Amino acid sequence: MSKVIADISMSLDGYVAGPDPDLEDPLGKGGEQLHEWAFGAQSWRETHGREGGERNADSDVIAERVSATGAVVMGRRMYSGGSGSWEQDPRARGWWGDDPPFHAPVFVLTHHAREPLPMEGGTTFNFVTDGIESAIEQARAAAAEKDVSVAGGATAVQQAIAAGLVDELEVHVAPVFLGGGARLFDGMAADVGLEITRVIDSPTVTHLRYRVLRS
Amino acid sequence: MSKVIADISMSLDGYVAGPDPDLEDPLGKGGEQLHEWAFGAQSWRETHGREGGERNADSDVIAERVSATGAVVMGRRMYSGGSGSWEQDPRARGWWGDDPPFHAPVFVLTHHAREPLPMEGGTTFNFVTDGIESAIEQARAAAAEKDVSVAGGATAVQQAIAAGLVDELEVHVAPVFLGGGARLFDGMAADVGLEITRVIDSPTVTHLRYRVLRS
Repeated sequence: MSKVIADISMSLDGYVAGPDPDLEDPLGKGGEQLHEWAFGAQSWRETHGREGGERNADSDVIAERVSATGAVVMGRRMYSGGSGSWEQDPRARGWWGDDPPFHAPVFVLTHHAREPLPMEGGTTFNFVTDGIESAIEQARAAAAEKDVSVAGGATAVQQAIAAGLVDELEVHVAPVFLGGGARLFDGMAADVGLEITRVIDSPTVTHLRYRVLRS
Repeated sequence: MSKVIADISMSLDGYVAGPDPDLEDPLGKGGEQLHEWAFGAQSWRETHGREGGERNADSDVIAERVSATGAVVMGRRMYSGGSGSWEQDPRARGWWGDDPPFHAPVFVLTHHAREPLPMEGGTTFNFVTDGIESAIEQARAAAAEKDVSVAGGATAVQQAIAAGLVDELEVHVAPVFLGGGARLFDGMAADVGLEITRVIDSPTVTHLRYRVLRS
């Protein structure tokens, strides 16, 4: 059955991006370290159109997510790093070039309406102006039998959990302190329950998976 | 060789105590949930003078720490929940009754000097007024070949890491959101490196162990 999964990398001190993000450094100071575990994985490289990489536990975790995901939801900042009107956004076509690594419909939360943007490799960016519930509903329809992945940033994940729409949470805990930035879990409702369903560890990251229980 | 270990339970949103702690509820709202994984473990029950309990992975993690620990360092609030002069602290003899679960010398960080307080079962509370470095130095001397465990709260752990005195960090991540309270990792220096050394998971908690690398 189709599920909604929040899937995101986090530092041990709880950040999904470091301090002072800008267009040069969209993940903020030190933020790249959150994803270092993925860069060498065969499956990550494959979705990014690159060859090589290791086939290890981390690669399997990514491959599993990629094959299960039918649509992706993300916030505007994750998409472009920008805000405000699209005309003034230097990354209005997203961070990832002509062939983004999603290979599926992506639903971007924004206050600025815009026509869908088809890219190469099966990714189409759709822009949703009426909130997280609508974005997830549209993503569910697009994903059909497959899962919807809420990929970030922190606000999108928080909104999706708060709306009771997340079935599963997978947090990739990177062994790093960022010391500041965007915290994944700020102001979480204490009545959102969690049940550990799987832990996979590797030398570079710990993959914690939880079922999210509605109170 | 003797090591200094910070060993503490944390919610998935990063708290080691919930909001609004008081004398009735020293761990704050919901804070007891951080330690639920331990309450049923045979080794935890044994250190607390209780019978029964399960011999499982969690019990082994606790037993291992107990047998390796020669001295404990903790903050004043963890010790009594109070602040200010000892005469006005209703828990001036600590939270744990006449036979505390430490069975080793404990060094309590405080601004208020006081004679050592010997308890039953091998615990002696010592009160250190000249800061974390002195507390750890005294604990090292008392522990001899064994390890020093920095048991909390958040401030004591942060100070010990910031002073470059922690060799190993063991965080027991409880599957719970507290939504507020005392954050374990606030204002961490981003140049403190971490290396994953061990992950043990159980249905109720995930034990993450890191080597702390000095920059």
